Amino acid sequence: MTETGKKALALYKKFNGTLATTIKVPLETEEDFSIAYMPGVAEVAMACTVDQANASLYTIKGHSVAVVTDGSSVLGLGNIGPLGALPVMESKAMLYKKLVDIDAFPICLATQDADEMVKTIKNIAPAFGAIHLEDIAAPRCFEVENTLQEQGILAAHNDQHGTALVIRAALVNAAKVVGKPFSSLKVVISGGGAAAQATAKLLLCDGVTKDCEGVADVIVVDSKGIIEPARRDLDTYKQYIAEHTNKEKKTGDIDNALTGADVFIGVSRGNIIADTILKEMAQKAIVFALSNPDPEVHPDKAKDAGAAVIATGRADFPNQVNNALGYPGLFKGAIEAKAKKITQNMVIAASDALAAAVENPTADNIIPTIFTPGIFDKIAQAVKEAV
Amino acid sequence: MTETGKKALALYKKFNGTLATTIKVPLETEEDFSIAYMPGVAEVAMACTVDQANASLYTIKGHSVAVVTDGSSVLGLGNIGPLGALPVMESKAMLYKKLVDIDAFPICLATQDADEMVKTIKNIAPAFGAIHLEDIAAPRCFEVENTLQEQGILAAHNDQHGTALVIRAALVNAAKVVGKPFSSLKVVISGGGAAAQATAKLLLCDGVTKDCEGVADVIVVDSKGIIEPARRDLDTYKQYIAEHTNKEKKTGDIDNALTGADVFIGVSRGNIIADTILKEMAQKAIVFALSNPDPEVHPDKAKDAGAAVIATGRADFPNQVNNALGYPGLFKGAIEAKAKKITQNMVIAASDALAAAVENPTADNIIPTIFTPGIFDKIAQAVKEAV
Repeated sequence: MTETGKKALALYKKFNGTLATTIKVPLETEEDFSIAYMPGVAEVAMACTVDQANASLYTIKGHSVAVVTDGSSVLGLGNIGPLGALPVMESKAMLYKKLVDIDAFPICLATQDADEMVKTIKNIAPAFGAIHLEDIAAPRCFEVENTLQEQGILAAHNDQHGTALVIRAALVNAAKVVGKPFSSLKVVISGGGAAAQATAKLLLCDGVTKDCEGVADVIVVDSKGIIEPARRDLDTYKQYIAEHTNKEKKTGDIDNALTGADVFIGVSRGNIIADTILKEMAQKAIVFALSNPDPEVHPDKAKDAGAAVIATGRADFPNQVNNALGYPGLFKGAIEAKAKKITQNMVIAASDALAAAVENPTADNIIPTIFTPGIFDKIAQAVKEAV
Repeated sequence: MTETGKKALALYKKFNGTLATTIKVPLETEEDFSIAYMPGVAEVAMACTVDQANASLYTIKGHSVAVVTDGSSVLGLGNIGPLGALPVMESKAMLYKKLVDIDAFPICLATQDADEMVKTIKNIAPAFGAIHLEDIAAPRCFEVENTLQEQGILAAHNDQHGTALVIRAALVNAAKVVGKPFSSLKVVISGGGAAAQATAKLLLCDGVTKDCEGVADVIVVDSKGIIEPARRDLDTYKQYIAEHTNKEKKTGDIDNALTGADVFIGVSRGNIIADTILKEMAQKAIVFALSNPDPEVHPDKAKDAGAAVIATGRADFPNQVNNALGYPGLFKGAIEAKAKKITQNMVIAASDALAAAVENPTADNIIPTIFTPGIFDKIAQAVKEAV
């Protein structure tokens, strides 16, 4: 176990978790209780009954998020179920408080059936401003998110949109660093899951209904090879990817995909890329090896192989692509704007705001950190304007 | 609108509700984030996967409660739905924090179908130490609670057990004040809902498997009259009441029931008892007129009619029978003892502890208040010992 892992276990044990509730109103005297509790609260209940929009003003609904998982695809740990996932969801809720002052609560589901997940989430939605879906395996994550959105629930899957928007922001700035137009980039994505598919779509402006600059092409490579229309093992969602990416109709493995590519984006597994392959990429290659804790290729090896800009998912290398940069502002903006839905336009707006927060990108500085002052307010504001 | 109501609306609007989340761990430096969030939390997730009991040590599960309603029977307001109920559930969650340092969150369901409620609650149960059911109409509340308990979810309906245990505690002390043995009391309960049925059962030691002193008899009177076996309009739950109460097989209205009774307990509607009827009760009558905000009979009138001990649900008269005295300690004890179920033995233990906290009961002091030092710890301890 790493030192950090040991410290984490000790910390979580000492505090019995990371999150608690707290009281926002005076509650000392008998009069305080009569106002905040009985009989006062009856008047507030009446107000929220007569006009249900009042619930967002008078209750936690105006600033609450349910961080919901089925525990089916947690970090690099896989399908560890609801109790294994709970500390992770609690830590995401903690970040909501820290980064954007939203009151989030972990909801870990005892089911992995898509229909039952949708029903459950819909049934608990009233007390929440929004539903943050997290660490749900593909393709179930697509079905759950789509159905909730169709039913009018403000819900988005962070592993898709939070991740995609941060990757895109980093790539916008990386393109500037290497002096290539964003629209000229040929991108290879390693991974077949939620993050890979959402990133491919966002980089191609899929679903965006306003002006949007897409990259030249994306090729997605899952564990079976390049996703392309001739493959017979693709589900509906991967078929869509096959039809909307890979203009040159490449087939085969990741080596074929990477030859001549400008950008490698890894959202798959550690150490699956040989550094020698990177030499077949175009000049001034951009390498985002984002798998945690082990990147697809070690950044030092990527550098030796000639990569011009390198990013990882880790805090101990430059350019950490961290989805904690994305979701807090995205959801805060959506809730504050009383959005009905998180659209691709809002995700693009969040991504643009995040990219723009780096004024002069350099090879070691293409993306803000969570410590960058005002970063979440900027994203939230951009999202609100895009609703 | 009352002054208190106006102040409540202003308070809830100013603070956007009464509850928030807060962070319990250091979270300032990059190292803090690496421990409490990524990558540290992965180790905690692994620990909770390998041994799921760790979730109660390492996460909020060890001290969290879901305050769940379907909004079907809220205060005196009736079926106001999930958003109307939300401020009430949030205020209950607030009390959990204030009174017993439990982290509770309001869950307001968008369904009033018992099966769907059970499935939903079961699906969200993993992140919670216990499920507090609140303001759910009878008979649905019985079905939902029973089914959850059968399925191994630690759940209890506060309007039943929280209320019943406080009423019983107050009655134990009221009996001492009037010098009548508890086991000699003839009790009439006005109301046919969750509180009435649960109180009748608790006063008769129904379901208790340890030594328990019950009252001599209980008669329950709903809006149609005395509940008795000849009635043809009773559901399963009221049939049970008919079979297990009313030894003298009385029929008719509340006047018939009250003639010669020692105790009146109202958990029904305001102003439904004429003070003249109270004169037909036994000497040294005990009158608990608990409907809020208007008691079944005004305490001044009850006094004039000769009642020896009077209690209400209000804070502005002596002897407030307030279920906030009951549920916090009951749930805290159950969670800390890792109970599988909240049993009648635990409810009786909570009730006894609450009653015993008043050393020398008098007509105006039969029950502690929420400000009584140590009251919730005493109840929780008694509950733990009764598991």
